[in-house]
Amino acid sequence: MSLLVQKYGGTSVGNPERINAVADKVARLRKSGHDLVVVVSAMSGETDRLINLAKSINADPPPRELDVLLATGEQTTIALLSMALEKRGCPARSYTGYQVHIRTDSAFGKARIMQIDEKRIHEDLKKGRVVVVAGFQGVDEDGNITTLGRGGSDTTGVALAAALKADECQIYSDVDGVYTTDPRIVSEARRLDRITFEEMLEMASLGSKVLQLRSVEFAGKYRVPLRVLSSFQEGPGTLITYEENEMEAPLISGIAFNRDEAKLTIRGVPDKPGIAAHILGEIGKANINVDMIVQNVAADETTDFTFTVHRGEYQKSFEILERVAQTLKAREVTGDDKIVKISVVGVGMRSHAGIASEMFKALAKEGINIQMISTSEIKISVVVDEKYLELGVRALHSTFGLEKPGHSAA
Amino acid sequence: MSLLVQKYGGTSVGNPERINAVADKVARLRKSGHDLVVVVSAMSGETDRLINLAKSINADPPPRELDVLLATGEQTTIALLSMALEKRGCPARSYTGYQVHIRTDSAFGKARIMQIDEKRIHEDLKKGRVVVVAGFQGVDEDGNITTLGRGGSDTTGVALAAALKADECQIYSDVDGVYTTDPRIVSEARRLDRITFEEMLEMASLGSKVLQLRSVEFAGKYRVPLRVLSSFQEGPGTLITYEENEMEAPLISGIAFNRDEAKLTIRGVPDKPGIAAHILGEIGKANINVDMIVQNVAADETTDFTFTVHRGEYQKSFEILERVAQTLKAREVTGDDKIVKISVVGVGMRSHAGIASEMFKALAKEGINIQMISTSEIKISVVVDEKYLELGVRALHSTFGLEKPGHSAA
Repeated sequence: MSLLVQKYGGTSVGNPERINAVADKVARLRKSGHDLVVVVSAMSGETDRLINLAKSINADPPPRELDVLLATGEQTTIALLSMALEKRGCPARSYTGYQVHIRTDSAFGKARIMQIDEKRIHEDLKKGRVVVVAGFQGVDEDGNITTLGRGGSDTTGVALAAALKADECQIYSDVDGVYTTDPRIVSEARRLDRITFEEMLEMASLGSKVLQLRSVEFAGKYRVPLRVLSSFQEGPGTLITYEENEMEAPLISGIAFNRDEAKLTIRGVPDKPGIAAHILGEIGKANINVDMIVQNVAADETTDFTFTVHRGEYQKSFEILERVAQTLKAREVTGDDKIVKISVVGVGMRSHAGIASEMFKALAKEGINIQMISTSEIKISVVVDEKYLELGVRALHSTFGLEKPGHSAA
Repeated sequence: MSLLVQKYGGTSVGNPERINAVADKVARLRKSGHDLVVVVSAMSGETDRLINLAKSINADPPPRELDVLLATGEQTTIALLSMALEKRGCPARSYTGYQVHIRTDSAFGKARIMQIDEKRIHEDLKKGRVVVVAGFQGVDEDGNITTLGRGGSDTTGVALAAALKADECQIYSDVDGVYTTDPRIVSEARRLDRITFEEMLEMASLGSKVLQLRSVEFAGKYRVPLRVLSSFQEGPGTLITYEENEMEAPLISGIAFNRDEAKLTIRGVPDKPGIAAHILGEIGKANINVDMIVQNVAADETTDFTFTVHRGEYQKSFEILERVAQTLKAREVTGDDKIVKISVVGVGMRSHAGIASEMFKALAKEGINIQMISTSEIKISVVVDEKYLELGVRALHSTFGLEKPGHSAA
C-alpha cells in the first residue's frame, strides 16, 4: 500500500495498443492497493509532428505560442490513458499542467517548476482514482502555458513525487535500467540494481540518455527515491539511492561516453588573469555550452587553452574563437570535431587513488592516445580520437570487471 | 475603428495555407485600425480524427476525458494562427477556453456557456494585440475542461461578442451568406443581404446549416449583430438584424427544407385528456426529439395522433409506439420514413393571411399531396413525399418571387 508516481515516456504510449498495455499495468497495480499518479509524455513522434506543423507556418515560431501548441501532445495522451483505465473499471482522472497548478517560471520552452498544488491530486487519490497528469507542461504566474523542454516529463514525475511525498518515482521507458555501459558497444554490459544519485548525475550528464539530467538534480534536491524501468519487459530496473555505504560500493559503477564532442584550442594567449574568463565569456554570449576545460601551465609568457563543446556548435565556436584570437593577439586557433569523451564513474573511487593510473594504463595498452584529461571526485574523463570509442569503452569495461555482478577491480 | 469578433470554421483553417490566408485577412483588418478577437475551430477533420483515436481505445469514452481530448483540436489552431499573425508583424495572443475563463456548466460534450471573463481580452486589445480564442471549449466550476458540442465555436464567437459588446460578430465559413434556399436545388437562389433574427432562427432549425441554432439563440438574447461570410471569397455576406421594418420586410425570406424527417401515426387512441402527453412522454424518455405534432379532431370516441422525428430514430420510435399502442388499446401504428419537410419563412407573413393558401395552391398545381401542415407566426411547414422535395422547393421559390432582389409576392 504505497503511493507511487509512475512516468511513461513517448514510446511507452506511442500508439493505442501501447496505451492499453500501460493501462493494464496501472489497473493491476491499483487493484493490488497502491495509490497511483501517472505522468505521461506525448505519443512518440507527436512533438516532432507539431514542431513541423509550426515551422510550416512560422520558421521562427514565438516561444509562447509554440508551448501552447506542444502542450496538446500530452493532453491527448492523458485523455486516452484515462479512457483506457475507465474501460478497465479503474476510475481515473486526467489533468493538464494547468489544472493541477504545476507553476513554472515564464521561460517558454525551458520553464522550471516552482511549485505544485497537490491538494486536488490527494482528493482524487482518496476517492480511489488513478490521477493521470500531463508531463512536460506547466503554467506561469500569468496563466500562460509553458513547457519544460525535451524530456521534461521526467521532471514532472519527480516534482510530483516530491510534492506528494511519494514512496517511489518510477520512470518507465524503453530501457530496463541503468547499465554499466551501452550494451550495443559492450555485449557484457550489466544492468545495475542500484546506483547512487551522484553517479546517476554523472552518467546522465555524460550522455546516458536514461533520464533527463534536470530530473535527476530535482530528485536529489528532494531525495526522491527514483527507479528506472522498462515498460516493455518485467524487471526491477535500477534504483537511484542516496545512502552511500562505501564498504559495499563498487569502485566503478559504469563507463559513460559522449560521441557529440568537439574540441577547440587557442594557442599562445598571454598568460595573465582574466584571459580564460574573456575567452569563455565570448563563447557563453553565443549561448554555447562548454563541457571540459583544460589549461596547461605556461611554457613562456603564453599559454594554450583548450575546451570542448557540442559537435553541432563546433563551426560557430571556431569562428568566435578566431575573432577572440585577433583581439588577444593569440598565435593560432586549432580544433578537432572527430573526438569522443570516455569516462569512468563511481563513488568508490573517492577513496582509491589508483583508478586513474589503471584507466590510463588500460588505454595505453590498446595504443589509444589521450588528448585531454579531466577529473571530478567520482569521475575521470578522457578525450580520445573518435575511432577509439568502442575499443576504449570495451577495454575499460573489462579492466574494471564490470561484467561481473558485485565486481571489484581493487 | 470598431471591435470585431470573427469566427473561422474548420474548413477555413483546414491546413497551413488556409491558416495563412486567414492571417493575411486578420492582419490587414488590424492594420486598418480595427480591434480584433478571432475565434477558431479545430482544423477540419481533426475532431473526427480525435474521436476515432478515442474509440480505438474505449468504444464508449467517458465524456469528461473525451472533452479533454477534443479540446486539443482548437488549442492547436489558436497556436498556429497566432504564429502566422506574429510572422506578419501583427502582435497576437492565443487563449484556450480555460485561460479566458469561458465558464460553462458541467454537461461534458454539450456544455452551455454561463459567463466569460473579458478583462484579460480587453487588456490585450488595449496593447494592440489580436486575441485568438479557442472555440468550442470552456471550463466548469471545478476546473474541468468542457466542450460545447459540434458547431460550438459559433456560440463561443457570439458569447464573446456579447461579453465584449463587440460592434459585430462575423462568422466565416465556406458559404458566403444565407440564401433564399439551397442553391444546389434552385439555381436562382439569391443571397440575402439581411435577415431578421427570427427568420434566421427558423432557417437554422430547419436545416440550413449556416449557423448552429444555439448560437443564433444566444445572439438574439444579447442582440449581437451577427454576420455570416465566406472565408474563401470577398463579399458582404448576410447580416442578421433585430429591427423589423415591416414596410420594407419581404413577405417571404426563404424556403427551408429538411430531408431527415420521418413520420409516425398512432391510430384510434381514446380521445381524452392526457393521451398526447403519455405518448410523447414515452418518446421523450428515450431521448428522441419530436419535431412536428398533428392531432386531428376526433371522428368517434377515438383520434389519430401523428408526429415527426429524425429519420435516424424512426425504428426506435416505431418500437416504442407499438408498446404504447398496446397499453392504450389503440387501433394501429403506421409510419413513413420517406418524407421531407418544406417550409416558407418570413416575418412579413404575420400581417398577410394569404401566404398559406398561395403556398398550398402552388404545391397542388404541381400535383404534390400535402401530408401534414404546421404553422408558426413566421413559418408554414408542410410534410410531403420525399420525391417531391426539389419540385416543391422550386415551385415555392418561384411562386414567392425569391429570385428577384427586393421581391414581393403580395
